[in-house]
Parts: sequence; structure tokens; C-alpha cells
Amino acid sequence: VRLLDIESDADHNRSVYTLVGPPDDMVAAMFDAIGTAAARIDLNEHRGEHPRIGATDVVPFVPLRGTTMDDCVALARKLGRQVGEELGIPVYLYEAAAARPDRTNLADLRRGEYEGLKQEIASNPDRRPDFGPAELGPAGATVIGARPFLIAYNVYLTTGDVEIARKIAKAIRHSAGGLRYVKALGLSVQGKAQVSMNLTDFRQTPIHAAVEMIRREAARYGVGVESSELIGMIPQQALLDAAVWYLQLDNFETRMILENRLSE
Amino acid sequence: VRLLDIESDADHNRSVYTLVGPPDDMVAAMFDAIGTAAARIDLNEHRGEHPRIGATDVVPFVPLRGTTMDDCVALARKLGRQVGEELGIPVYLYEAAAARPDRTNLADLRRGEYEGLKQEIASNPDRRPDFGPAELGPAGATVIGARPFLIAYNVYLTTGDVEIARKIAKAIRHSAGGLRYVKALGLSVQGKAQVSMNLTDFRQTPIHAAVEMIRREAARYGVGVESSELIGMIPQQALLDAAVWYLQLDNFETRMILENRLSE
Repeated sequence: VRLLDIESDADHNRSVYTLVGPPDDMVAAMFDAIGTAAARIDLNEHRGEHPRIGATDVVPFVPLRGTTMDDCVALARKLGRQVGEELGIPVYLYEAAAARPDRTNLADLRRGEYEGLKQEIASNPDRRPDFGPAELGPAGATVIGARPFLIAYNVYLTTGDVEIARKIAKAIRHSAGGLRYVKALGLSVQGKAQVSMNLTDFRQTPIHAAVEMIRREAARYGVGVESSELIGMIPQQALLDAAVWYLQLDNFETRMILENRLSE
Repeated sequence: VRLLDIESDADHNRSVYTLVGPPDDMVAAMFDAIGTAAARIDLNEHRGEHPRIGATDVVPFVPLRGTTMDDCVALARKLGRQVGEELGIPVYLYEAAAARPDRTNLADLRRGEYEGLKQEIASNPDRRPDFGPAELGPAGATVIGARPFLIAYNVYLTTGDVEIARKIAKAIRHSAGGLRYVKALGLSVQGKAQVSMNLTDFRQTPIHAAVEMIRREAARYGVGVESSELIGMIPQQALLDAAVWYLQLDNFETRMILENRLSE
């Protein structure tokens, strides 16, 4: 198992670790990591801006290469059972691994955060964990699941007016009637209006669909797209899809890429 | 050395072999191939629509991965010397490997084809080869050089009027005042007007620059771009460049691609 990336933020008081490896090794590594976090982090003493319910707050398995979403769902359930039974930490399954439809969204599972969940977990049947005890220790609870690769993508407008960015974000995000796999917020970043997005399934809602919808909405306010920026990593396919769409390249096949032919 | 692709065409009476391998192995393999072609093909008996001057007509070395254009120039000269001296075949160096500015273009070197060159090679000092004897046997002469990866790319218009495709091709091609690394022809393909291009250096003249110039020229005639098509292979970078340009992705780095990070 290889650690590809760590992002830590003092205000959030939170670290994001990105690991990659063969399926079974990933489960073993995550089990160890959850045990270590539980031994070192006491949620009763923890403060930070980012919502959280546990020392290891959330573990999403993301399919890569030959691995399927179903494989990742199986890994999430295996890890969840092990964490619940062997570490005594309550585990909620989410996204593609969710065992109940009302547990699909991470934000719903984090409602009230650690402190709120502590009050409710024993008494409220809706908050009973999928694995592990219905009581919260200092390590809190852990959300485990499977989801597609998430692309964090921001678009800057040719205006400093954050209200326009907010209106555009509302028009394009799923929760307000917009594109299905887009979460969006309007922000002001260094004096520029920014539409900040999470593209949660780029195969279903591709980047270019989101960018072009922003461009069209922006035009309605008389502004344009100044530039865009990618935060973190992106699968190659997401950019190839954009190239093929903009170039109207009808006969494209992945095998046409020289590097792919070389590695065959 | 691996054979990636063969394209043969009966009308052209010509085959294109695409090979990939480590630099020195490529020279050895090409030397053997040129010797085999010389033993089997008699240009005095050869007829075909495509212009040619030799049994092995042209050998372009194309830099890939860690190899530079300078490396390929050195390989072209090494192979050229060996073919001239050991096989007694006249060799002309072209493109980045050219020893004289008037030998940059392949079409100039093929002027008069085998039959015309046979008349001139001994008497015309401008046609004296860079390596090998100034006389032409049944194997003819071979052009050897180094050039960037060539992308064969066609754009279909929303019209059947081939005259419009011809006018656009003229506007965009280098030879008529257009984009530096674009060769273009207007053709009629299955009732559709097509702008057929060779993009001879996609890092200098990117695909999107050619496609968008076609789109603008087409608009002047009241037509649009219906679709585009790629012939053969394309380096990944050429499509990534298009995605980054259309998405206005200012902060892009190759390291942001997940697959690249995985193979580091």
C-alpha cells in the first residue's frame, strides 16, 4: 500500500490521507490506521471547523484500474465489520456501500457531529450503526463506503461579485435542481468570484457539462469564465472526455492513444 | 523492437510499418529491414499511386518518452551512414536531420520519383545523396530523418460542398499562409466536405488551434463543424492540451493526473 498524498489543515484540524494498493492490502492498512487513530485521538478534546464524528471520520474506497465499484462495496463492508467487531467502534456504511437509502449522504451521517451523535446513538433507532456497538467512545464513529473518484474543480468568473457565483452555483448543483453529480458553492477567492465544485461522478456528469453550464449561466449576468483550476488529482479519462467532447472527436477509442498502445 | 502497426494499401502499393524500441535496437532493426526490402523490391517493376524513390522510401525517427529530437537526429545519421556505406543505397537526410535546408521537405526529395531521380542523381549536384553512391540501383534511394509525432486529423463540415472545404484548407495550411505546422486538403468523403490535415508538430500548433480556425472559417461560409476524426495514433499529451485549453485550466500540471502519480 502506498501513501500518495496527505493534506492537513490546522483550521479544519483534520488530515486527508490518499492511499493506493491491492484490495485486501488496503483493508488491512485501513484497519491498522483506524486502530492507531482511535488510540491517539480523543474526540472529547477535538475542535475544528470541519464536521466530524470520529477519530477516523470517513473512509471511502474508490475503484481504480481493474477494480469495480462492487469490489469496493465488498471491501467497505469487510472493513466495517472488522472495525465494529474487533475495535468496538460504531461503523456507518455510506454511498454505494450504504445498507439503507437514508445513509447514502455523508452529511446526513455527520448530523450533530460527534457530540450530537453521542446523545442519540443509543436511543434513536435511526442512528444505530451498521456494525459495532450503539455507544460512542472517545474514538467516535467511522463512516465507511465506496464511491467514484471525486474531482474538486473551481471556475473563476470575470467578476468580483460573489453573488453571481452563488446564483450560478445554485443553478448548477444537484441539490437545487441542477446537474446530478455536482455539488457547488459560490465563494470569493482573492477578490474573484469562484464557483467551487465537487464533481462526484465524472462519467455521469462530465467536467465539460459543468463548465459549459457555468459559462451559460454567467453569460446571463453579462460575465464570462476567466479560468478554472483543479484541486488535487484527476483521472486521465476525465480530461480525455473533455478533449473528445470539445473537439467533437466522434471516432475516438482509448486504443488510439500511443501510450496505451505501448503499454498493451 | 516491437511492431505496433502495419498499414498497407493496394492502390498506393505501399506499406507503412510503425515500430517502437530502444534507440540502438531501432537502428539495427531498420538496417535489417532496409536490406530485406532492397533484396525483394525492384523499383523498375514497381507501380503505385503514392510517390516513392526507394524500396524503403522513408524512415522517420520520432522521439518518445525520454528520447529527444537530437537523439533521433543522431540515430538518423548513424543509420544513414550505415545504409549508404554497407548496402550501397543512396541516402538523403530530411526534416530535423537534414544536412541542407533544401532537404527539409520530403516532397522535394521525392521530386520526379524513382524514375526521375535515376536520370539526375549522377549529373545534378543538388541531388547528390548525403550518404552512399550517386547512382541508383533497383532498390532506389532512402530518405532518413527525424521529426515530431505526426497527427492525422480530419474535420467534417455541415455541408457537402467540397469547395468550402478546399477554401478552408487553403486558409489554414502553412503553405498558403496559414498555421505553421498544418498541412491541409479539402476532400469530399461519403458526400460530406472534409478538411483533411496532417498536424506535423502538435506542441507548436495544437489540435484545438487548427479545429477552432476551421470553425471560424466555416462560419464565414455559413456552415459549422459536424465532427472530427483521428486517423491512427495520437500522443496523450495532444488530447490533454486540448482539454486544458477548452476548460481554461490554468493550474494544470501533468502530475495532477492520477495515473501519472501511480506510475511515479
